[in-house]
Amino acid sequence: MDEPKKRHWKTKLHDIIYEAETPTGKLFDVVLLITIIASIILVMLESVNSIDIKYHDFLNISEWIITILFSIEYIARIITVKRPFKYITSFYGIIDLLSTIPKYISLIFGGVHALAALRALRLLRIFRILKLARYLGASNNLVNALKASRAKISVFLFAVVIIAIILGTIMYLIEGEENGFSNIPKSVYWCIVTLTTVGFGDIAPQTPLGQFIASLVMILGYGIIAVPTGIVSAEYTAQSKSKKEPETPKVNLNSLSCANCMAEKHKDGADFCYNCGEKLHQ
Amino acid sequence: MDEPKKRHWKTKLHDIIYEAETPTGKLFDVVLLITIIASIILVMLESVNSIDIKYHDFLNISEWIITILFSIEYIARIITVKRPFKYITSFYGIIDLLSTIPKYISLIFGGVHALAALRALRLLRIFRILKLARYLGASNNLVNALKASRAKISVFLFAVVIIAIILGTIMYLIEGEENGFSNIPKSVYWCIVTLTTVGFGDIAPQTPLGQFIASLVMILGYGIIAVPTGIVSAEYTAQSKSKKEPETPKVNLNSLSCANCMAEKHKDGADFCYNCGEKLHQ
Amino acid sequence: MDEPKKRHWKTKLHDIIYEAETPTGKLFDVVLLITIIASIILVMLESVNSIDIKYHDFLNISEWIITILFSIEYIARIITVKRPFKYITSFYGIIDLLSTIPKYISLIFGGVHALAALRALRLLRIFRILKLARYLGASNNLVNALKASRAKISVFLFAVVIIAIILGTIMYLIEGEENGFSNIPKSVYWCIVTLTTVGFGDIAPQTPLGQFIASLVMILGYGIIAVPTGIVSAEYTAQSKSKKEPETPKVNLNSLSCANCMAEKHKDGADFCYNCGEKLHQ
Amino acid sequence: MDEPKKRHWKTKLHDIIYEAETPTGKLFDVVLLITIIASIILVMLESVNSIDIKYHDFLNISEWIITILFSIEYIARIITVKRPFKYITSFYGIIDLLSTIPKYISLIFGGVHALAALRALRLLRIFRILKLARYLGASNNLVNALKASRAKISVFLFAVVIIAIILGTIMYLIEGEENGFSNIPKSVYWCIVTLTTVGFGDIAPQTPLGQFIASLVMILGYGIIAVPTGIVSAEYTAQSKSKKEPETPKVNLNSLSCANCMAEKHKDGADFCYNCGEKLHQ
Repeated sequence: MDEPKKRHWKTKLHDIIYEAETPTGKLFDVVLLITIIASIILVMLESVNSIDIKYHDFLNISEWIITILFSIEYIARIITVKRPFKYITSFYGIIDLLSTIPKYISLIFGGVHALAALRALRLLRIFRILKLARYLGASNNLVNALKASRAKISVFLFAVVIIAIILGTIMYLIEGEENGFSNIPKSVYWCIVTLTTVGFGDIAPQTPLGQFIASLVMILGYGIIAVPTGIVSAEYTAQSKSKKEPETPKVNLNSLSCANCMAEKHKDGADFCYNCGEKLHQ
Repeated sequence: MDEPKKRHWKTKLHDIIYEAETPTGKLFDVVLLITIIASIILVMLESVNSIDIKYHDFLNISEWIITILFSIEYIARIITVKRPFKYITSFYGIIDLLSTIPKYISLIFGGVHALAALRALRLLRIFRILKLARYLGASNNLVNALKASRAKISVFLFAVVIIAIILGTIMYLIEGEENGFSNIPKSVYWCIVTLTTVGFGDIAPQTPLGQFIASLVMILGYGIIAVPTGIVSAEYTAQSKSKKEPETPKVNLNSLSCANCMAEKHKDGADFCYNCGEKLHQ
Repeated sequence: MDEPKKRHWKTKLHDIIYEAETPTGKLFDVVLLITIIASIILVMLESVNSIDIKYHDFLNISEWIITILFSIEYIARIITVKRPFKYITSFYGIIDLLSTIPKYISLIFGGVHALAALRALRLLRIFRILKLARYLGASNNLVNALKASRAKISVFLFAVVIIAIILGTIMYLIEGEENGFSNIPKSVYWCIVTLTTVGFGDIAPQTPLGQFIASLVMILGYGIIAVPTGIVSAEYTAQSKSKKEPETPKVNLNSLSCANCMAEKHKDGADFCYNCGEKLHQ
Repeated sequence: MDEPKKRHWKTKLHDIIYEAETPTGKLFDVVLLITIIASIILVMLESVNSIDIKYHDFLNISEWIITILFSIEYIARIITVKRPFKYITSFYGIIDLLSTIPKYISLIFGGVHALAALRALRLLRIFRILKLARYLGASNNLVNALKASRAKISVFLFAVVIIAIILGTIMYLIEGEENGFSNIPKSVYWCIVTLTTVGFGDIAPQTPLGQFIASLVMILGYGIIAVPTGIVSAEYTAQSKSKKEPETPKVNLNSLSCANCMAEKHKDGADFCYNCGEKLHQ
């Protein structure tokens, strides 16, 4: 008998979580955004020893509050979605899960702070930042340009690695162990540092010949930085042109998400999901 | 009876300050420009201990001369403008005020040099450099391109920050405190230093695995620098094209500024302000 | 009498080595790829002292296995190719030979590890990485853009060198030996480090005037990095446009290689080499 | 009576020096090119103490030979040119003179090596490298693009300087003397080092707040490097387009130089100078 009522309650919750147009939906989004950012700041502050010692209890309690909020969000998403398993195994589902479990696990191994594995596990919470990806999305043009030039950029980066390995070996031969180029991997590392114009300076050539080769590496790196830029620039120009020309009639897409298949970006006024045919506003 | 005369005097002053076409207007501009630059150099030199000790009196007197000049300019602008309050609360009004008061306040707290707050206040004078912004303006094309690509560049920089936080945490885990990555904020700072190809080298990875991850970060940074460049480049090309095509009849705009609403860029020959209808040449 | 049979055997081998479409050909490619990468990693690891001491025998045996595999590949290529001399003197032929001989030579001068010349010779094996170039190829567009802008980039880099020499001499004069600018070549080296925005920091200006000139050098370097980027970007855009416009009918090229002249990229279905007329599938 | 003969001799010399098409003209160019490069290398080597001590006499004699060669070239140019005064006061005339006198002056103040002024004077010889500018020239497209975007790049660099001064002052306030930001000019210098992504690391922020501001500076610098690139890229594309469209009939320009006004780039077959009307081949 209370089935329809319960359904109604689920639908309402679904609208709050997945729709950004309603006031409560907006509020949910803002609260979630703040919670995510606060949680990232917490993880970062916790790693600062002096702060951790001073405010340990405050940080711990805040962390628990955030973990519980994320747990509620995770459970609410599972309940309101039609195919929970699909959500759980989706990218966002895994991120949402990873945002909560590290704290619970740290509860089990409570006292053992020093364990490196546990420390790594606790830091997994930093991936909560990927929850922010839900709020990005918009920049299709850019992503398309990057996708279109992915193959070329891969070839370019592959060529950079080959150059770095060859020049790194030559530098290892010229400079040798006494000047910090203690083995080929380290020389290749130095070469990448130099080619990419980063230039830490923790290792630097000391011999005149080494400095001459280094100059060539730098000028090479300075010159070839033009290549990926040229590629992305050209592809991006192509993208915005091809997008401009046909001038498709603009359609407003809302941020509603289908309760069944989780597809987003439905047209305004659409009553059924374009992806699975599920009714959108129950 | 002397009202009309006084008005005439005000109008003259207004023309000197706000019009750049008349000889006195030009002279005013040049003197102001030199005073601003001299004042910036003064603030900078004052911060050099050895110079401050040697030439303290000279610097102090020069600073007073400049402060008085700027005070006169500020008062003159208030007098000649029709709606002084609007000027005072405008961007330039605040900058003009900030250019004078620090020196007066330092007079009140004369002897107390060591106060950090007072030192900060004195350095506020550096913002006088923004008075130079009045002389820039011209590059509309560029500003439009930047405005058009603002949203995309924000998304890009946001993505850079997310990458820096995740990679910074990973580096913190790998390198740890003993190699300078003493906490996550510092690791994230290192990651930004590396991604942006700045590479100070005050912190540098020491472990082979850390150096390997660092290499990936550098190649990533080297690759994604192409993205903002591509965006601005494409938008700028689009800007200059769309500007070229309609070929609007060129109109000369003068640098006269309306005495009432302070709107600038009136057409040559215009008698009334396009913005508020006020007569321009009284 | 067994001539036709032998020929058949040779043809089969040729197909395995030079054709990537057949299953055995694909397998050969994958095995070769893995062997090359493994061999590069071996050379790099061998240069790390701690690893070399611990796993010396394992590295040595692996190196011998790889050397023998490469020797077999080299001999097989000579046998199956119609004009062996042409292959031997080609770029890939020399690389393939250089991939094997260093190990054999190290056998002759077995005990003498310390010889610098021998050490250099052993490191020649790093050039095996160029065997990977066979797997690149695809990015014609990019290579064309680089070729088209080669002359301009040369002029640009030449100008960079001239600027570096002049500014390097000036910095040598200003900073002098006591601040690390011990001679002009070193100053020029510093100038290239700075102009290319690498900035090691092993040498850095200490005098105020030197830091002022350095600032100019940096801003100059920051500004002129736009030049090669602009060139490649424009040429690349031109390349992709001119390629787009004629819209040639697409033809699938296969990776078959002519047994006679080694030309690649034959059209699908072609029976004779487009370059020398040799029958392709014997 | 020997006037015509003498003139003939002068014309011949003029052709050798200014024409690059004749065999002797080509030889002259090659010899001059080698001499210039050799002379630059000499100046650089001379500054290396260990080399100077060992090969002082050799370097000195070589320097004298080069100086005498350049003197002969300078005199020959004066003799063969119709308006010697115009040549002497031209850019190349001054460079040619500066290439010879430092050595002669060092002869006068022979023994006094330590004089800083004399040392600076000797280094003037490095400007001989500008003699190479005669061999560049070709890249008109590039130069035009740079000229067209000069105004915009100036505005951009001016904005960079303003940002550097403001952020430098803020960093001076935050970090203070104890962390290397000992005065505002030094802080501004650090800010330019960081904004341009050079990053020496001789000065680096130590306080968390300073590192946070530094991160903003770096991301800002990483973002705005796109601006000059975008400008040059767009202008360069525009340049090559406007050049392509009208498709002017190609005319071969030779490298002959007018004996009277020194104008270059005459059309093949031209008998009179396009600039002054002087007969070209006397």
